[in-house]
Amino acid sequence: MKTAFLLTGNELMSGDIVDSNSAEMAQMLFEIGLSVDTKVTVGDDRAALHAYIDSLSREHNILIVNGGLGPTQDDLTAEILAQTADLPIEEHPVARAHLEAWCERRGVALSPANLKQAMLPAGCRIIPNDRGSAVGFEIDLHGCRVMTTPGVPSELRLMMRHHILPTLEADASICFDKLQCFGLGESRIQQMVHDHMPNWPVSMDLGFRAGMPLLEVKLRSKGEPELHQHTLAKLHHLLGEHVVCEGSGTLPNTLVALLAERGEQITFAESCTGGRMASEITSVPGSSAVFGAGFVTYSNAMKCDMLGVNAATLAQYGAVSEHVVLEMVNGAMGRSGAQWGVAVSGIAGPDGGSDDKPVGTIWIAWGKQHAMKTRRLRLRMDRSMFQRMVCAMSLDLIRRDLLGLEAEPSYFGRYL
Amino acid sequence: MKTAFLLTGNELMSGDIVDSNSAEMAQMLFEIGLSVDTKVTVGDDRAALHAYIDSLSREHNILIVNGGLGPTQDDLTAEILAQTADLPIEEHPVARAHLEAWCERRGVALSPANLKQAMLPAGCRIIPNDRGSAVGFEIDLHGCRVMTTPGVPSELRLMMRHHILPTLEADASICFDKLQCFGLGESRIQQMVHDHMPNWPVSMDLGFRAGMPLLEVKLRSKGEPELHQHTLAKLHHLLGEHVVCEGSGTLPNTLVALLAERGEQITFAESCTGGRMASEITSVPGSSAVFGAGFVTYSNAMKCDMLGVNAATLAQYGAVSEHVVLEMVNGAMGRSGAQWGVAVSGIAGPDGGSDDKPVGTIWIAWGKQHAMKTRRLRLRMDRSMFQRMVCAMSLDLIRRDLLGLEAEPSYFGRYL
Repeated sequence: MKTAFLLTGNELMSGDIVDSNSAEMAQMLFEIGLSVDTKVTVGDDRAALHAYIDSLSREHNILIVNGGLGPTQDDLTAEILAQTADLPIEEHPVARAHLEAWCERRGVALSPANLKQAMLPAGCRIIPNDRGSAVGFEIDLHGCRVMTTPGVPSELRLMMRHHILPTLEADASICFDKLQCFGLGESRIQQMVHDHMPNWPVSMDLGFRAGMPLLEVKLRSKGEPELHQHTLAKLHHLLGEHVVCEGSGTLPNTLVALLAERGEQITFAESCTGGRMASEITSVPGSSAVFGAGFVTYSNAMKCDMLGVNAATLAQYGAVSEHVVLEMVNGAMGRSGAQWGVAVSGIAGPDGGSDDKPVGTIWIAWGKQHAMKTRRLRLRMDRSMFQRMVCAMSLDLIRRDLLGLEAEPSYFGRYL
Repeated sequence: MKTAFLLTGNELMSGDIVDSNSAEMAQMLFEIGLSVDTKVTVGDDRAALHAYIDSLSREHNILIVNGGLGPTQDDLTAEILAQTADLPIEEHPVARAHLEAWCERRGVALSPANLKQAMLPAGCRIIPNDRGSAVGFEIDLHGCRVMTTPGVPSELRLMMRHHILPTLEADASICFDKLQCFGLGESRIQQMVHDHMPNWPVSMDLGFRAGMPLLEVKLRSKGEPELHQHTLAKLHHLLGEHVVCEGSGTLPNTLVALLAERGEQITFAESCTGGRMASEITSVPGSSAVFGAGFVTYSNAMKCDMLGVNAATLAQYGAVSEHVVLEMVNGAMGRSGAQWGVAVSGIAGPDGGSDDKPVGTIWIAWGKQHAMKTRRLRLRMDRSMFQRMVCAMSLDLIRRDLLGLEAEPSYFGRYL
């Protein structure tokens, strides 16, 4: 089954938009066992659209066209597809009814511009759009299923999930699973699989998607559900404590769920991360159950005033020191009443380093009341990556403690 | 001058990577007056690479190939390009010298895998890579300049900027400028230009790139530097107070610069944004000059404890109220000593709304000591967008006050 994408829109050619639609579509197809071999992107250009619709449909079984379904003159997909397939354009009753309902919900009149969105190649099959005005449609061209989809990501996502993938799932025997991992890179995981799962079944596809900070590990197979489950369990066991969650998920989500289960709270005393930890936790709906307060103490004076850090400690050891992060975390936990806490103080750069404490140095204190741990690390990366990484690592350290993992995480070794 | 991109890599086809390289390359070319008309993306596949190198080079004057220059067997660009151009592959002395120097800097031996990166089509011109191991190269094929570039974004950026764009800048008469705007959409700006600059010169290209929260407005023209400057000045004047900065820049950057100029500080008392404002300000290097402390008071109890909000005020008016945000901001400014402050309290959703205060309701207090303003707004958007938008708007409100803009921003009207 050969599959291609044709993406259209001047904003894609000018670089004014980064195309994430095609990546999302490809991932969805991957999960049901289909892969994409060609993507072509052209502007709102009649000749280019015609030429590529023609050639890609001759060489593939499935062609998904994305974009160009809107109400403006630039939106050429229906017109050019009809022309290439030698079909007349006519008003499609289902599309018209969709537009009328769409306008009615918004309390607006159906405009001639919108009505253009009902003018489709004769005999096409409508692909419903559950959110926007532009329906998709499908025709057969040179033996290829040509399907058109809207450029708006949220509309595309719903259309793919509910109205396109189900028509493609000829093969129900595909098994697909994901594990979200922290602290392991792709090559390290490949080495671990090589070393510890030497009889890796050839029918099991192992894939990776580098998110930051999580690495998504993907397992896909066909027609062997038992072997799939067995392999997944072994892989999960092998990656062990590095697996943050199965399926889709994030570090903050996992942490909020773990804390909520226990009815416990967390707080953060942040210097170099400047509020990022608090911001990430509160991005999770329902985080108020586990988070009441965060302290962004960027200056030394505020470390004293807000957290009760001793001025003498600061003077003696400096802000980036074990003593100071310990006083910070104790102050934050005392003031907020949270059972869990993290404090960080470091040099995010690009300036502010010294021989003794170069840019990238961080002291971190984390853990549960009366069981705090501390560590000095050095993260050699730019300011933005440093702040993201310190934040992710802090959340992961608490996750590990919540799970009762005693050993020091292997990734500390990378940041000495 | 017809330009095309050929992007290669299995990770682009599987959707494991979102391609941002081509957007960045297109933007760079746009700035020097070139536009791209076709982008083709294929996996690490000999037949597909050969077919598209052949066809795209026949139809274009410039073809930039991105990816496939690495040391592994998957990296096929040099081999297939040589084959398509009917050239032998041979070790290139400049590429070899580059690899030797690269390995020496890292204190590692030159491996056979790396040496593959010096095996290039005979007679090609080397395009230096200032950072990574893979040099680019250029050959002429069917009258088309075919240039190969590395897939690593940071390496690509340097190579484009320093070693490819200068060879393309045949036309030095291109003028290009950008304005970063907040609070105006693309269609609104087009309407303003239509209404207030009726004699818009046809030779001036107006473009847009929707960032969130800023909209980038781009002006490009050719051979008329005076008209360009005149049009830019009029456009800047028309967009007026909505222009956050010229060129590249962000709201936090602009705010840090404005505060630093005056030697003043800002603080944040954040409930529903959960630390995001503090995090954005501290993403700016040097922000310690203008920011000492932020207060993330997510629970009611901590609004009292950390900021001195009166429990009676909370009981009488609720956390999302004018009285509470005023007490919050006054508390934060009193405790931090900052001259400027923002407090926000709202319902980010998806739950927690009531008839009286539905999801999306926000009270905000902002301004300078003894000159605080307050406002209730409603932002109908999902939790993540709500938090981003409240944060951006807060920073913009302070920016406006710092500039002495008295009038209420027009975008308030959108959020009633």
